[in-house]
Amino acid sequence: MTEIRGWATHGPGQKLEPFSYNPGPLGSEEIEIAVEYCGLCHSDLSIINNDCAISEYPVIPGHEAIGKIVAMGEQGKGLKIGQRVGVGWNADSCMHCHGCMTGNSNLFTVALPTITGHHGCFADRVRFHWILAIPLPDTLDIASAGPLLCGGITVFSPLVTFGVKPTDRVGIVGISGLGHMGLKFANAWGCEVTAFTSHESKPDEAKGFGAHHVVSNSDSGGMQKIASSLDMLIVTVNTPLDWTELLKTLKPNGHLHVVGTVLEPMPIPAIDLTFGQKSVSGSPTCDSTTIATMLDFAARHNIVPQVEHFPMSKVNDAIEHLSAGNARCRIVLDADFGRLN
Amino acid sequence: MTEIRGWATHGPGQKLEPFSYNPGPLGSEEIEIAVEYCGLCHSDLSIINNDCAISEYPVIPGHEAIGKIVAMGEQGKGLKIGQRVGVGWNADSCMHCHGCMTGNSNLFTVALPTITGHHGCFADRVRFHWILAIPLPDTLDIASAGPLLCGGITVFSPLVTFGVKPTDRVGIVGISGLGHMGLKFANAWGCEVTAFTSHESKPDEAKGFGAHHVVSNSDSGGMQKIASSLDMLIVTVNTPLDWTELLKTLKPNGHLHVVGTVLEPMPIPAIDLTFGQKSVSGSPTCDSTTIATMLDFAARHNIVPQVEHFPMSKVNDAIEHLSAGNARCRIVLDADFGRLN
Repeated sequence: MTEIRGWATHGPGQKLEPFSYNPGPLGSEEIEIAVEYCGLCHSDLSIINNDCAISEYPVIPGHEAIGKIVAMGEQGKGLKIGQRVGVGWNADSCMHCHGCMTGNSNLFTVALPTITGHHGCFADRVRFHWILAIPLPDTLDIASAGPLLCGGITVFSPLVTFGVKPTDRVGIVGISGLGHMGLKFANAWGCEVTAFTSHESKPDEAKGFGAHHVVSNSDSGGMQKIASSLDMLIVTVNTPLDWTELLKTLKPNGHLHVVGTVLEPMPIPAIDLTFGQKSVSGSPTCDSTTIATMLDFAARHNIVPQVEHFPMSKVNDAIEHLSAGNARCRIVLDADFGRLN
Repeated sequence: MTEIRGWATHGPGQKLEPFSYNPGPLGSEEIEIAVEYCGLCHSDLSIINNDCAISEYPVIPGHEAIGKIVAMGEQGKGLKIGQRVGVGWNADSCMHCHGCMTGNSNLFTVALPTITGHHGCFADRVRFHWILAIPLPDTLDIASAGPLLCGGITVFSPLVTFGVKPTDRVGIVGISGLGHMGLKFANAWGCEVTAFTSHESKPDEAKGFGAHHVVSNSDSGGMQKIASSLDMLIVTVNTPLDWTELLKTLKPNGHLHVVGTVLEPMPIPAIDLTFGQKSVSGSPTCDSTTIATMLDFAARHNIVPQVEHFPMSKVNDAIEHLSAGNARCRIVLDADFGRLN
């Protein structure tokens, strides 16, 4: 078995270095892909830096990968060698508990994240459970699609989970990595879309991504104008916000949904929920079938994230670029281990 | 037009005194009922004391009334003089806006609460929009049913709104005025029901109301035992709680739903919502059709609140009893103006 070559960090905040490991014999339910592209996501930074105290070093980050199947265990089903697939946040799950058996494998603690306790996709190859391989629509732009596999599904998921209707009004807070994909999805979903941004300079950019309206969080007049108008507000940023003000933008029965990793507890007044029968909720990524559905929708609506490319060998430059807040909007690393494709 | 005689308070915290007013000509869409019974609800106390700064004095409290129709405007439909009906939190609404036209009249600011800006039901008669008259099932125990019209619908509503299934596990926090009705409804709904109480002495009482399990909020072992088990947790108390601990009792996709008037903002960690795709929500009462559906369900399952009766002329004693926390579980005032029935 050839060693897998990747890029790993050995401790919080340390630079990534070349790192090889022996993957051992292929499990009967595993597949192995040769990585072609992999998105660089904020959660890679969190795991690199051990922000959530769950990292297991050495960490090979990368959980938005696209590549071709090069090996498949004898229990793999519905896939074939040479087929191009994607993999996202999760690499394995027990596949027999109630959650896994009802399409919610991603929500249960039995799920194994691709980059914690498992070597991720900033590597020439990666292995994962065949059920978590996402077949790709033929028309998908594979060089840009990687970030859909985690970031994209994260903002797509609430549209599905809450049964958002094309007649609904949807707000997206933040128009960067996650938010710009949220704008594209909500627009293609048929909704009237409002982008919320703290940057005065971004209205044209937000409209380019699909926003019909752009409101600055700090413009009280603008916030008042859209009061009680939104069915759903998806918060994609990870900074504390004025939750009471944001709840006011919701219609009765409206949902404020958080997908950014806001670390400080949100002080939510109960009365702001009860009077208008509102909710505050959150979600991570999705199970593989919903990711496949999302990719199909994305391909049909020509939705890809706006990406910047770095060769994978320049992963540390890419990390610095993202950490400094300079990425517009997502980063994709192109695998350059010299023997792929 | 005969004056309406009631019991009113003229300022925050003041005792109720006899108070009469001239209701003027009956509106074409109004009905007038002769009050027989009226529940005394915690929200009557809030309005009496102006806790929410929305009270308009003099206040005639009372918004859980049952009585017979004695007059009906020419636009009233589907009702007849002499018919016994109920009325709850709302007495009027615009009946033409989007919310009213889609069965959500209760969630919009156009709704007129029965006891703010409108004289309530601690009176011999009361008027309200005919659409807000709730027809009563024949088999309903009318002497006890009053509190269903506000308190009852408040705990019934989340079962409907969230599409709770009889196979679900439901928790109810608090087993007093609202909570004991929540236990009865959740049990009759077919669910596995857990009562949460801070009173060590209440397990038998909670089981009598329909709880299959009783957990003390302060028993960390008990809390741990039910971790990740509930589909829905309905909070009926109005005191600050350990929200993080309560969220842990929810399964993935679970809902923590607040119906008590918790005044302090709830510090909700976003991460506790995102990982398990959970939500925190709230709701007030419902529209009149859902109240009618609830009464039908209650009658079919012999659900009535546990009540103590006071003659309406002893309303101040009843208020003192409720304020002191001595009511087990709801109070009904029996109208005794000397000329009813």
